[in-house]
Order: sequence, then structure tokens, then C-alpha cells
Amino acid sequence: MGVRISACQLAVPPGTEDNSQLAARIGKTADWILLSTGVEHRRIADHDDDPIELAAKVAQQVIEEVGPPDLLIYAGAIPRQTLPDSSAHVLGRLGLSGVPGFSVNAACLSFAVAVRSACAVLESDPAVNRVLICCAEFASRGRNFTQPESAALLGDGAAAAILESCDGECGLKHWSMQTFPEGADLTEVRGGGLRHPFTEPSGTEHLFEMDGPALLRFTVPRMRRFLNSFLKDAGLSPQDIDLIVPHQPSGRALEVLELFGFPNSRVVNIIRDYGNCVAASLPMALATAMQEGRINRGDLILLTGTAAGVSLAAGVFQW
Amino acid sequence: MGVRISACQLAVPPGTEDNSQLAARIGKTADWILLSTGVEHRRIADHDDDPIELAAKVAQQVIEEVGPPDLLIYAGAIPRQTLPDSSAHVLGRLGLSGVPGFSVNAACLSFAVAVRSACAVLESDPAVNRVLICCAEFASRGRNFTQPESAALLGDGAAAAILESCDGECGLKHWSMQTFPEGADLTEVRGGGLRHPFTEPSGTEHLFEMDGPALLRFTVPRMRRFLNSFLKDAGLSPQDIDLIVPHQPSGRALEVLELFGFPNSRVVNIIRDYGNCVAASLPMALATAMQEGRINRGDLILLTGTAAGVSLAAGVFQW
Repeated sequence: MGVRISACQLAVPPGTEDNSQLAARIGKTADWILLSTGVEHRRIADHDDDPIELAAKVAQQVIEEVGPPDLLIYAGAIPRQTLPDSSAHVLGRLGLSGVPGFSVNAACLSFAVAVRSACAVLESDPAVNRVLICCAEFASRGRNFTQPESAALLGDGAAAAILESCDGECGLKHWSMQTFPEGADLTEVRGGGLRHPFTEPSGTEHLFEMDGPALLRFTVPRMRRFLNSFLKDAGLSPQDIDLIVPHQPSGRALEVLELFGFPNSRVVNIIRDYGNCVAASLPMALATAMQEGRINRGDLILLTGTAAGVSLAAGVFQW
Repeated sequence: MGVRISACQLAVPPGTEDNSQLAARIGKTADWILLSTGVEHRRIADHDDDPIELAAKVAQQVIEEVGPPDLLIYAGAIPRQTLPDSSAHVLGRLGLSGVPGFSVNAACLSFAVAVRSACAVLESDPAVNRVLICCAEFASRGRNFTQPESAALLGDGAAAAILESCDGECGLKHWSMQTFPEGADLTEVRGGGLRHPFTEPSGTEHLFEMDGPALLRFTVPRMRRFLNSFLKDAGLSPQDIDLIVPHQPSGRALEVLELFGFPNSRVVNIIRDYGNCVAASLPMALATAMQEGRINRGDLILLTGTAAGVSLAAGVFQW
């Protein structure tokens, strides 16, 4: 019994913000933004847009391509509201009643973790044959304009994928994840939970806080060791990987993958057009690669990335 | 290959609030509270208490009983903060670096869903032998004192469990879940996410909203059909279940289980002492049952309940 990713699509809000529009708000030039972040423009949702609508829209697209799911996993970092979890709202918008839903949150690695959970469920429960994973992130609502780097990096987007049981060799062949909580304060949204009680007035604690240079220093050596050991355990070398589909933290973080032995030509890079869309970035990159015909049957696809936590994850999916 | 629940413990804040202390704040009598909700007293965390500390404390207890985990799943409805997810903070507090962590959220059914995910991972990944599931809920911080019923029901608590691979027949034998999003607005915390942007002043949208009578009317007939069909598919009758470990939504919701064929004597009921502790209630009930020696090897244990969403779930765990 194998598992295949039958469909993956992305959806973004129509509004585009280019660097010249953003530059003055963060006290930088458009050139500085492109050079520092790798982002040329990003999509920004309107104030009244509901992330659930965008998530349901892209979910509907993959359902039309493949068929209705037996289970929905919402794999996002920032929910629409605290309770209930976003899976119920997406199911409601899709008009699906009775299909189970829950949420998985591993910050920017939520999609990768959901793929792993979905594969485990598809392999172990014969009653589940089709799992829908989706999310929409409107990270622009948490931009802190006094922090130029993170404010310039973040963008809005959504993606959905359907995983199905199938015959054959396809599926998640190797998986590994590590969390290094000593880096937990390098990327935060400190509000929105119990730490700052709901009834206290909101301030900057509800905005993204990121120490980009410290995060890169923290992450790069750990990611190098992690990926080396992951590939060794899997009996693979970087050359065996046909395509790397990473989270899109920043232009610089994507360039670093070359140092680990993955040539740029095999790394899906959508940072220039969309920025860092938090948990939506990885499936948006996968959707882009599929749309561009960059994935063929039998290919070994590396889903990988880093996330607030700090977590590192890698999964080799045989297509 | 089986899976066993090697340990499950609970922890609660020391502060107890009895009905006479609460009565005036919600404009009711202590008797009304007990009669309407089944709660006699509940634990209330201090304003400065950190839910992560309580979650880590009880997690440490089960680790000392069994050993360190290969994976931590934080299974709560309300996080300490928006980003990163709470698993990283618990890992940090436990001093565990390199152990992977992520969060699962299915509102009050988060623990049940995490058990199901953990079992699937333990069965499918030989590199994972021990999964720690934990959460702490400080629901008292979201009490809306203009809504007497929900304000009287909610309490604070935490629980942790460790699941391990093992030889033998034990494990999750049957599992089912359904979500009915047409009831999603019957229990809500509308703030704390993208719906009410972080930078807008907080109001009552950050408090629990629950329409108790409507929720009971919505849930009871669906739960009856769901449990009937679940047991039928599993080839079981209510008499085959040795112990029912349910979420603790309210005294009345627990009494309803008798109408479904489960005698009160076999239903773990801790609502009187702790109230509804959201996602912590189900594992707190399991911890209580284990502590009281109510579970024996080979027993069939029904983990079940309802959650905001509205979701229903049931899992038969052979001990």
C-alpha cells in the first residue's frame, strides 16, 4: 500500500504589494528589500477578507480534481479564531457535514507534519482513503513595520493538497524532525493566547517578532547536521533527490541549501513572487512545481524546511 | 505490534474556587450552579501562572514514570501564544533539545485525536517508540461572566500521557470521528486569530461563547446515531465496554451517556471536582481512572466525547 499526492494547488489574494509600495512604511528602499529578503512583491489580503474563504476556495479546487475527502487536516500556524479550530470552518464553507476535521500546527512546517500524519493514517486505517490538507495564512495582518526584515518577508497565501491510498511504491519513504526549543524566542507572535490574556488590550505582542540574523546563525549549522544525518539514514545522497520543495523563509535561507549539496536548479523557489507565507509556503511551492511539470512519477521529492520552534523537518516522498 | 498507554497523570493549579465564591459574579446561587452544571468547585490558575509550566510539570511526571519521548504532541485547544506552537515551549521547559514537537487541535477532542495520530505513527514508523501527549488549559481566563452556564462550567487543568509500542493485542482497535460544521457557532472563542486582527482592541470576542441548551439539542441525537453506528461497525455492544472515559462537557452531557446504554457506574465522571477543562478533561478523566485502579489489562476502554466544531469522536482502546 502506497500513498500519493493526487493534487496540490495554491490560491492567493488578488492584491499585490510591490517593494516600492512597502519601502516607505519600513524606512528602507525597494532595492534593500529585494536584496535583503529576496522578495519582489507579495500578495496582501484585504482587511475584510476571511482566510477560511481562501482556504475553502483552494480546497474546493483539489476536491474537484480528485474527489471528496474522508478527513480534513487544517495545517496552519495562525488560525482564523481561537475556538473551534479552523478545520470546522473550512468544512462548513465546503458544505461538508460529517467529514472529520482537526488542525495540526508546527508553525511553518505544519504542511510537512500533516503529510506525515496523513500518510500514517492512510497506511494504518483502511476506512480512510483520501485526506485533504489545507491552510490559508494572512501573515500580513501580523506585520511589525518597525522590523523591516520580517515585515518585508511576510505575505499572504493558501494551498491545498489531497493524499490518497494507492497501489505501488509511492509514498513517504523517510521522515525526520527535530525541535530545538532553545531557539523558540527567535521567531514569535507572543499574543493571541493565554500568555497575554484575552481581555488585556492588544499591542505589539500580537505582531511577528523575528531576529533574522540570529535565526540564520542558529539554524544553518543545525540544518546542515540534520540533513546530513537524514540523508545518511535514508541511504541517499543530495544527488539522488530529484527536486527539493522547501519552506520559503527568505531568499538567503533558500540559497543556503546549495551549501548542503542541493543545486539551485533543483530547489523550488517562489520567494520572489509571494514572500514567506508561513505554513502555506511549502504547499504553495509544491503546487507551483506540479503546475510547471517539474515532478514526474518515481521522482524522489524532498519536503523540508525550518520553522519557529525552532523545528527542522525532512521527508522524502517517492512520487 | 501493539500500542499501550504506559502512563497518564493530571496536574491542576492549587487555587480552588467553589460555587459560593462564583455565584455572585454570575448572578446565580451556588445551588443553581451545581444543579445546572454538575460542578461543585473548579481549579483556577493565578493571573501570572504559565500554562506551559503546568503542562511541563505533568509531562515530567509521566517521563519519570516511563522514560523520555521520541515525539511530543501538544494536544490543546488554547495555546500559550500564537507562534511558535506550544510543543516547543513544553520541550524547552523539559530541557529536551532535538526531540520533535508539534500541536494537534480538535478543541475538546484534541487528546483523542492525538492518541489516534500517535498510534498511527507508532504503528507505521519503527523509529518512534514513545510518544508524549500533553496539554494545559487555563479556560478560566476566557470566562464570560455574563454567560452564567459556561462561566460556571469552565475550569483549569493539565494532563500528560505516554504511548509506547509494545507486543501483544493492546492498542486502538476502532476509531471514528465526525465534524458537523453547521454547529460551529454554538461554542466559540471568536478572538485570538485573524478574524479579529491582532492589533484591534480586545473585547468580549476573546471570551468563551456557548449556547448550552442549543448545543445539547444539536449534539445528543447526532451522538446517539454516531455511537450506535460506531459500535455496530466495531462489532461491539455497550455492554462490551469496560469503562467509558469521556470528555467532561457538563454534568448533563455525561448523564446522557446512560441513554446510549452506558451505565453511570462505568462512566468516568470528574466534572464535580474540576468542571470542563476543555482539551485537558479527557486525559484528566483517564488519569483519574488509572489512579483509582479502574482499568485492567485487556479491558476495552472507550475514549469519546464532543467538541466545538461540532465534532464527535470515539475510539476503543484495548488496554
